[in-house]
Amino acid sequence: MKSKPLQKLQAAIGRRKIDAIIITEPGNRRYLSGYSAADHGIQESAGVLFVPAQGAPYLLTDSRFMLQAEEETTGFKVELYPKGMLSLVIKLAKGMGLKRIAFESHYFLHSVAEKFAEAADKNGLELVPVTGFVERMRVVKSADELTLIAKSVALNERVFQLVYSTIEPGMSEIEIALALELTMKELGAERPSFETIVAFGTNSARPHAVPTDRVLQSGDIVLVDMGLVLQGYCSDMTRTFIAGKPGKTFLERLRVVRKAQLAAIDAIRAGVICRDVDRVARKIIDNAGYGRFFGHGLGHGVGLVVHEDPSLGPKSRKKLRAGMVVTVEPGIYLPEWGGIRLENMVVVGEHGCDVLNKDTTGLDL
Amino acid sequence: MKSKPLQKLQAAIGRRKIDAIIITEPGNRRYLSGYSAADHGIQESAGVLFVPAQGAPYLLTDSRFMLQAEEETTGFKVELYPKGMLSLVIKLAKGMGLKRIAFESHYFLHSVAEKFAEAADKNGLELVPVTGFVERMRVVKSADELTLIAKSVALNERVFQLVYSTIEPGMSEIEIALALELTMKELGAERPSFETIVAFGTNSARPHAVPTDRVLQSGDIVLVDMGLVLQGYCSDMTRTFIAGKPGKTFLERLRVVRKAQLAAIDAIRAGVICRDVDRVARKIIDNAGYGRFFGHGLGHGVGLVVHEDPSLGPKSRKKLRAGMVVTVEPGIYLPEWGGIRLENMVVVGEHGCDVLNKDTTGLDL
Repeated sequence: MKSKPLQKLQAAIGRRKIDAIIITEPGNRRYLSGYSAADHGIQESAGVLFVPAQGAPYLLTDSRFMLQAEEETTGFKVELYPKGMLSLVIKLAKGMGLKRIAFESHYFLHSVAEKFAEAADKNGLELVPVTGFVERMRVVKSADELTLIAKSVALNERVFQLVYSTIEPGMSEIEIALALELTMKELGAERPSFETIVAFGTNSARPHAVPTDRVLQSGDIVLVDMGLVLQGYCSDMTRTFIAGKPGKTFLERLRVVRKAQLAAIDAIRAGVICRDVDRVARKIIDNAGYGRFFGHGLGHGVGLVVHEDPSLGPKSRKKLRAGMVVTVEPGIYLPEWGGIRLENMVVVGEHGCDVLNKDTTGLDL
Repeated sequence: MKSKPLQKLQAAIGRRKIDAIIITEPGNRRYLSGYSAADHGIQESAGVLFVPAQGAPYLLTDSRFMLQAEEETTGFKVELYPKGMLSLVIKLAKGMGLKRIAFESHYFLHSVAEKFAEAADKNGLELVPVTGFVERMRVVKSADELTLIAKSVALNERVFQLVYSTIEPGMSEIEIALALELTMKELGAERPSFETIVAFGTNSARPHAVPTDRVLQSGDIVLVDMGLVLQGYCSDMTRTFIAGKPGKTFLERLRVVRKAQLAAIDAIRAGVICRDVDRVARKIIDNAGYGRFFGHGLGHGVGLVVHEDPSLGPKSRKKLRAGMVVTVEPGIYLPEWGGIRLENMVVVGEHGCDVLNKDTTGLDL
């Protein structure tokens, strides 16, 4: 049985007069085939799809992944590439009489493309670099996908709440991050969707802080940014709170961030341009005098990949569509003081949006 | 103060009449600058280096990483790229009157290279794709690097031994893998160097098995493949043993794999061609009748990246040099029965090699 996305892709490449497409991007590979192996970076792929416009698609991999590839896919012919991916692709294309072969330009190394171009030349193939072909299909989620994402968010919150209740002065950032990742796996997550961030005090001023052995002191800011992968789908949430009683400055700044978040959520609905949502949040932060301390975009799409389209950044001209899932995560970061970021995930609807997060820890103080 | 590798790189590009090089590969970035941030995949870089043939080098990143970049590097000018990496590179190149700009073809997306080529054209720059420039410098380790790698191996073994002593029937693959990763971090590792593999019974027939909730039964094969990162440097070790008393078949196969490993280690010294080392091990496995069940190369280089040059695969024509660090990891994998892999790391010397691993668990039965 072929998956719907696969049929849609085959029709789409057929319309572009493309004979076959090579799928290298791991999220796209899983979306189309169900194959869940993780790549060890772009230079060590766990396999690629070779999808002709007509007929059965292939999953090309090496012997290490053969069993998993055969178990997890239906309708895909699994072929091994002992001599490398490119030579198998060329062999298949020639065997099937295919000429115009597309590849994912945004997930294909320049050096591999150079070799491919040379080999294609010798074999009378024409290469067509394409970008975002499958990502565009992925950006609006199906009902089944939305269910899985909601489950991922719910599990992520459960993990957060279990560990949150144990946090106390004397624990280190690493200790809490490890407890979160351990609990994720114990409760059935495949893995964290990114390296868990736990940052105390001034460390929280780094939006991408890596946990250290810094020990929590009473009165410190605690920023936790965490997500997990459940049945392929990612979650992503940030909470910021004080170990103890929050002071006036923290509360004032927290309220600015929360106000920006709520206003942005209020602005989200199908048809709105992404950067306009960013602008709503940014204006509130600007007006409060923290504009230059909000150095990143407001949010990003989430699905099989934790950062995917659309971006809710200040330059993003994309239009929101119903069924998109995005984060809303304004933040302010003062190097000498610390940072506050609040992040929820929402599903875009025709007339507004649904906030997937139920956890309210530290949001409305 | 400039690092030695940096000076060497600047001299090397100068000789090639290259005015500046963009370093995108994360291991190279850390090697040259000390900057330790991790990328979230190739599409979400934590920064790049822009190294002119003469004068001070730059670390280009975004605001999320600014503090870390400034703290971790010496002699690098940290610049932010709010408008993207390419436009900042072009601005710097033009400001400094540079013309020929190299980039790392093996760690540069095709789509980014296309945009870069277009922009370079408009701005009178010439792009020079290069491959493995810095990797070639990294392949032979300095004395300091060898010390760090030895420490990484020692810590990895300590973690293994602590957890090994707790393994008993009733535990799941995931449980053991989590205990290993937790212990790594508790003992000071930055992170695992790859996703820890713990595989029981037939699961061990998958060289890249992902831990499942399968529960250990007395008599099962247990394969553990693990590594960690300590001060940037990776370790990688595999042990295979039985939960309980090993049977005749297991022992026979284990001895084949161990014999292959020892023979390969015996063959390693400066001047030997990599594939010849693979052949030594492969021949022993072939002669024992398991040739078609050894589907991967014998080993790989290890350093700042867990899989780096040189490959000890059957097609690798590279010559071993003193100071290289490689794994020696023969294995046999029978889908219906299970797998056995034994992996140690060695430092290549002029007249032989030093085995970095001291742990002997299950090796010589």
